[in-house]
Amino acid sequence: METITVELNQNSYNIYVGQHLAKNLASDLVDVDKIFVLTDAKINKSQPGYFEQALQSMEHKIHIIAPGESMKSFNSVAEIIEAMTLFAMTRKSLLIAFGGGVIGDLGGFCASIYMRGIRYIQVPTTLLAQIDSSVGGKTGINTEFGKNIVGSFYQPQAVYIDISLLRSLPAREYCSGLGEIIKYGLIEAWLLDYIINNYHEICECDLATMTFLISACCRIKAKIVSEDETETGLRKILNIGHTFGHALEVATGYKCYLHGEAVLLGMYYETLLAKALRVISDDYAEEIFAIIKRTKIDPSLTHLDCKMLPKLMLGDKKNSGGMISFILPIARDRYLERQFPLIEIGEFCANLSQGGGKSG
Amino acid sequence: METITVELNQNSYNIYVGQHLAKNLASDLVDVDKIFVLTDAKINKSQPGYFEQALQSMEHKIHIIAPGESMKSFNSVAEIIEAMTLFAMTRKSLLIAFGGGVIGDLGGFCASIYMRGIRYIQVPTTLLAQIDSSVGGKTGINTEFGKNIVGSFYQPQAVYIDISLLRSLPAREYCSGLGEIIKYGLIEAWLLDYIINNYHEICECDLATMTFLISACCRIKAKIVSEDETETGLRKILNIGHTFGHALEVATGYKCYLHGEAVLLGMYYETLLAKALRVISDDYAEEIFAIIKRTKIDPSLTHLDCKMLPKLMLGDKKNSGGMISFILPIARDRYLERQFPLIEIGEFCANLSQGGGKSG
Repeated sequence: METITVELNQNSYNIYVGQHLAKNLASDLVDVDKIFVLTDAKINKSQPGYFEQALQSMEHKIHIIAPGESMKSFNSVAEIIEAMTLFAMTRKSLLIAFGGGVIGDLGGFCASIYMRGIRYIQVPTTLLAQIDSSVGGKTGINTEFGKNIVGSFYQPQAVYIDISLLRSLPAREYCSGLGEIIKYGLIEAWLLDYIINNYHEICECDLATMTFLISACCRIKAKIVSEDETETGLRKILNIGHTFGHALEVATGYKCYLHGEAVLLGMYYETLLAKALRVISDDYAEEIFAIIKRTKIDPSLTHLDCKMLPKLMLGDKKNSGGMISFILPIARDRYLERQFPLIEIGEFCANLSQGGGKSG
Repeated sequence: METITVELNQNSYNIYVGQHLAKNLASDLVDVDKIFVLTDAKINKSQPGYFEQALQSMEHKIHIIAPGESMKSFNSVAEIIEAMTLFAMTRKSLLIAFGGGVIGDLGGFCASIYMRGIRYIQVPTTLLAQIDSSVGGKTGINTEFGKNIVGSFYQPQAVYIDISLLRSLPAREYCSGLGEIIKYGLIEAWLLDYIINNYHEICECDLATMTFLISACCRIKAKIVSEDETETGLRKILNIGHTFGHALEVATGYKCYLHGEAVLLGMYYETLLAKALRVISDDYAEEIFAIIKRTKIDPSLTHLDCKMLPKLMLGDKKNSGGMISFILPIARDRYLERQFPLIEIGEFCANLSQGGGKSG
């Protein structure tokens, strides 16, 4: 088992990466009176009794909600808070978020506001959640105006990343996780090399490879989060591919792309934007296009009216002052933050629907 | 103008106490792109154009909601967040909570979760909010199961306490504020002396007296909050009168007592409990009863089935493990935290409905 510490003074916590980790939970359940496990029907079906042994001696409740992004709503929050209240949870109680990004974001948010905050533990079940959303303390729900419009920065007590859970993950979701993994490769080039050289083992979910890879991604994220907990500076580099990616998700009503798929396309088109601006070398751009293509995602946007994308980007919470902000890859280990007026991105996007999105 | 600093490392902020303070806001509006003023219809009517001059050069919106405790709900939060989104607020925007405790708790909560947290300023308009709820960063909304079941610890950017606003406060609300002021007197005895010796000036809202008194209360609260931001220890002493008081509010559906009135009664009955336990001297108990009686509140609970109170106390978020926790006054400058099993408080309360609540 690998242990990574996210250093955040009194909010510091450990991320554990390994197999069959539920049995290790005990050390994080000291001075806890009740445990509320939030999970969804899909996870509960594929991992029945996952916590049975670990929690058998403690008062606990498994709360199962429907799966899907639409659960990240005020309505769900009100229902979960009601269930927590009926279970008579106190400030000494703990929530376990057992699921993918939706469960993690929703569970973390409920923990952050129930009685002004109780402890919670992340047990992410998807590759995407294991390397990204479960680490860093971002919680959130959506409104009809956008993703994660409401949320908090609220750190978990611990994160247990159980690689054995990936075995039952649908292929498409697994592939979506590769989107965020490749993003870490754009942040640290040695990792991009590792991904390229071990792509087959990664696709096969080889345990040693994935333990190393997930730990590496978490280490990168932990370091960035430690230096910038509330995203005032450095943490922004984690948003490579996300300005474009989020807009694609909103434009398609979250129905067309999984988050990691949207990030893959986001990196693709942000690299194309960097190319149009001539701030990235051709070699590096080709390297990025090549690794994205290996995931077999179709980058074409011909089914979409791309003219709507810039306005959606402007609504993203990272943007203010009428400018759209991008983190663009420009060279190995290097990236550039740049802000554009709406009209400039409008021109770039108008081109995409007309088949201008080909990387050659 | 008096300035009190709440020391909380990177969350430190100032409380300003004086008259006609809106003109001083500018120093807190640096790097702010938009301002959203949350207020209620009553305040908006009694203080029309309060911010007009101060905000005239900035993009701002006055958002008016209905008055009353029932607005502290998930529904209101969703509506306010929607209005904030439609006003296209960004992470550089700021919320001003202009009103009493309801507006402060609700506005602070919305600020804490909009885009994972934006800055906010408290401009409390009631005596109660000026000395208590606006200071300390507790935000919250109610659910059908209790008061402030949902909320966050989230510090404001600044608190502007404008004493001139008290002039238009209804007498009953002003008197309710005295409840929390007397509570500070139970925490620091010199203040109890000041209240007793200046009771007439306090009731008349003499500006010099109130500037001194409110500053003193804020200083006590600021010191306590600095040492215990998230209420793990010391901050509990601020809950004198509140275990009983909250239960009274819930039992009467928040319709019978203003919060400060409930706290007055809470202090009355908690002193009676301390007497029953023989942990308080008769002299000190009489002193407390006397000052509470000067507020002219009727302490009798004959209209209420007091047997229901202990269970409601158990549901309070300060309690866990089936025990009910009280902070009891025992001597000048001294108080005692004690936990009781349900049955013991049940016996004490059963007595009250039968007229056993007379202090002699």
